[in-house]
Amino acid sequence: MTETREKFYARCEEIHDLQEIQQLLEWDQQVIMPRKGAEQRANQQAALAALAHRRLTDPAFGELVRAVETGVAGDEVLAADLREARRAHDRAVKIPEALVAERAKACALAQVAWEEAKAQDDFASFEPHVAKVLDLTRRVAEAVGTENRYDALLDEYEPGMTEAELKVLFSDLRDRLVRLMDKILGAPRKPSQDVLKRHYPEAGQEAFGIRVARDMGYDFDAGRLDRSVHPFTSGTFGDVRITTRYDERYLNTALFGTLHEAGHALYEQGLDPARYRHPAGAYASLGVHESQSRFWENLLGRSGPFWRHYLPVLQGHFPGVLDDVTVDAFCAAVNVCQPSFIRVEADEVTYNLHIILRFELESALVSGALGTKDLPAAWNEKMKAFLGITPPSNQVGVLQDIHWSAGLFGYFPTYALGNLYAAQFMEVLRRDLPDLDERLSEGELLPVRSWLAENVHRQGRTYLPQDLCRRITGRPLSADASMAYLGTKFAEVYGF
Amino acid sequence: MTETREKFYARCEEIHDLQEIQQLLEWDQQVIMPRKGAEQRANQQAALAALAHRRLTDPAFGELVRAVETGVAGDEVLAADLREARRAHDRAVKIPEALVAERAKACALAQVAWEEAKAQDDFASFEPHVAKVLDLTRRVAEAVGTENRYDALLDEYEPGMTEAELKVLFSDLRDRLVRLMDKILGAPRKPSQDVLKRHYPEAGQEAFGIRVARDMGYDFDAGRLDRSVHPFTSGTFGDVRITTRYDERYLNTALFGTLHEAGHALYEQGLDPARYRHPAGAYASLGVHESQSRFWENLLGRSGPFWRHYLPVLQGHFPGVLDDVTVDAFCAAVNVCQPSFIRVEADEVTYNLHIILRFELESALVSGALGTKDLPAAWNEKMKAFLGITPPSNQVGVLQDIHWSAGLFGYFPTYALGNLYAAQFMEVLRRDLPDLDERLSEGELLPVRSWLAENVHRQGRTYLPQDLCRRITGRPLSADASMAYLGTKFAEVYGF
Repeated sequence: MTETREKFYARCEEIHDLQEIQQLLEWDQQVIMPRKGAEQRANQQAALAALAHRRLTDPAFGELVRAVETGVAGDEVLAADLREARRAHDRAVKIPEALVAERAKACALAQVAWEEAKAQDDFASFEPHVAKVLDLTRRVAEAVGTENRYDALLDEYEPGMTEAELKVLFSDLRDRLVRLMDKILGAPRKPSQDVLKRHYPEAGQEAFGIRVARDMGYDFDAGRLDRSVHPFTSGTFGDVRITTRYDERYLNTALFGTLHEAGHALYEQGLDPARYRHPAGAYASLGVHESQSRFWENLLGRSGPFWRHYLPVLQGHFPGVLDDVTVDAFCAAVNVCQPSFIRVEADEVTYNLHIILRFELESALVSGALGTKDLPAAWNEKMKAFLGITPPSNQVGVLQDIHWSAGLFGYFPTYALGNLYAAQFMEVLRRDLPDLDERLSEGELLPVRSWLAENVHRQGRTYLPQDLCRRITGRPLSADASMAYLGTKFAEVYGF
Repeated sequence: MTETREKFYARCEEIHDLQEIQQLLEWDQQVIMPRKGAEQRANQQAALAALAHRRLTDPAFGELVRAVETGVAGDEVLAADLREARRAHDRAVKIPEALVAERAKACALAQVAWEEAKAQDDFASFEPHVAKVLDLTRRVAEAVGTENRYDALLDEYEPGMTEAELKVLFSDLRDRLVRLMDKILGAPRKPSQDVLKRHYPEAGQEAFGIRVARDMGYDFDAGRLDRSVHPFTSGTFGDVRITTRYDERYLNTALFGTLHEAGHALYEQGLDPARYRHPAGAYASLGVHESQSRFWENLLGRSGPFWRHYLPVLQGHFPGVLDDVTVDAFCAAVNVCQPSFIRVEADEVTYNLHIILRFELESALVSGALGTKDLPAAWNEKMKAFLGITPPSNQVGVLQDIHWSAGLFGYFPTYALGNLYAAQFMEVLRRDLPDLDERLSEGELLPVRSWLAENVHRQGRTYLPQDLCRRITGRPLSADASMAYLGTKFAEVYGF
């Protein structure tokens, strides 16, 4: 390697390492930090963020990127690293430091206001905060300077994706989901969730979660499982920590939560060891990340073959509690479809409708077509149109998610994209592993993990997500695979 | 405040915040980091250390210090902040970055080699490592450029203290301790530790430790108690975490370990809220820090009045195990004096002899009078001279401590200084709180904590440790208070 390239990579690795620290500080805060450490943690994060920003925007780093760019032809990986380094550097340089700081502060205040407003069901007190955050976020988008403001935001989470593409993709998806939902609601069979609401002691839930995570290939020597109010995955490669939460009266919370986070964690643990600190060695996008969690949570974790093996294991963790339940009944229970108010509790059919609703609203907010004062009415109107129900309060409506208070406009779509990627990947996996269901029935999860590692994890972000999708599945992302999967599955569960 | 002063303090706070992060990364590594995260953690620490070093040595920071220094007259606190900022900046500037990096790497390797050498009782394999670390440490001392090399090292841990002063102080202390030890060993009464070696389940030990820490005033909302192989205290002010370890067959380990760390923690939690991020708002020195831990562990925690209240509490945590034990018998057991090989297990009388031995050896190593190859022989010779015993192996001799492999030459003396400060502070506390023993007998620990907070904690490092000692006790540090305390106490325990 030339000296210039070495310097370029050393800089990239330093920036990466600082980001790892930022994540660790966040994990610590969510999971174990004592209450009175909050102010110091904010100071630490601010100091570190400023330093990391300075390193990323350092003109000397820009020079290095430029120097390496000359004569890169033929080296796909280096080209990808340069592309990602340039993306990050150019974007950071364009956004004035003062705007970054002002927005960070506004978001911090808005999150506190949101928590309070949600608890009190008081949208009016939150509205000025979200208006301010929206305004500053629009100014960030303008500074980035793409033709379309929303694209500038989206690009941070799903590189290469555009608002125009999402509109086409999601309007198709929305109509098909609503039709499927109507079919389900009109079906004669009405499976019940009752079996999931018996008494399941925490210790058994935790032991089962650890067992499945281990079977999936999650490496506990390179991670840990803790508890937190909002489950999440943190870290990369050799230190990838997951959290979950337990509800002794509702099995789904920890069960599918742990599968979900372990899916995210496998992605991070599966990155290329030689490249995980390089710009294109990281995860491809948030959408692809979400595909990995949903893959395990839903496509495998809510399937019959999976439970043919794991229901007896689960029964063993709760002696006497589940003995009367058949695999079919259990599978039906974890696949009940029902319009509901809360996104994070939604089933596979209605979940994406919650996302599309948010996308349409935030798209209108960013373009200026919708004002923040009109958000609750617009929210409820769309809930009625998509799901046929009207939230009884803003608490279970427009105030339910933290994202907008945190400035995360353009983030929601990646959840839906994750579901679509997952289904499209699954079709290829079934082709490559024709005896998949048989293996799942025997509790063999590692072949799936190996397939994902080879096709997704180790690719990192060498390719833009849409290109990665084409390379893996042979076609661009669409709603077809997801709709085919959902149609077949729910026809079986609901008997239509 | 003028704009220049504001800028000066903002810079100081940033440097402080980065140091807090470094400590948290270390805590996480010792307490909960998954095994495979080690390499990434090393990268994170290296990246952060380099950035922090660059901020501290930044010529612009030096300029700021100089600018504020003009016209500081009359402001004692500002003057102290400037003194400490200048000390840290000047020292960092003098040591070449390449030497810092080379030494950090040599220490990392030496620590691994030390662990292995200790396990295998193989000093020869460790010797080249400690020789290398010593060489690099001497070069650091030379770069700092004080007249005496050892003083340059000592100054980092105990500002203002010199090797010459230590030699006088310690040779007096050594002779008096040896005389006291001989008296004890010749005494007719031979108290036994047997009662401490019954079966004490971990849960009871932990509950008792938490109870006492709480009574001391340790704020669990600004800290946590965890387990680690080597107990330590980490963090400051609103986030001060302590660790301990449990031995179900030896009560002392966790009991006095927790008191010790909680004593350190009270110091950090008790710093001035307005100043803990400023250069002179931090702890005064490692010696003063150690005085706080030893104060609680020994001067209170190994006293009769303390156990008059806490023995019944302890008995309650281990039903049936301790019922036959009187306060006098228990006190005698926790005060058994016996020459032994391991520093961290030594009693109050022999402990400082272990320290003085190390001081004399490292002083000779740094001056060049002793070579690393001759260390084991020199160690064993001094053990024989001070304590009358010869280690059967280097494992329980020269290889027992991690310090030298970590480059911590000049650090050991602070442990002995802590014991001396503590005893000297105690004399004043007894004058200020004449009914101290009565209060302790009733389990009232908070008056002690308040006294320490006012006289020690909130002072931070406004004064150099020797000046702080004079302000609190009216005289310079000496061995007198400690020897008087030990003489009285052990005469009682051993009946001479």
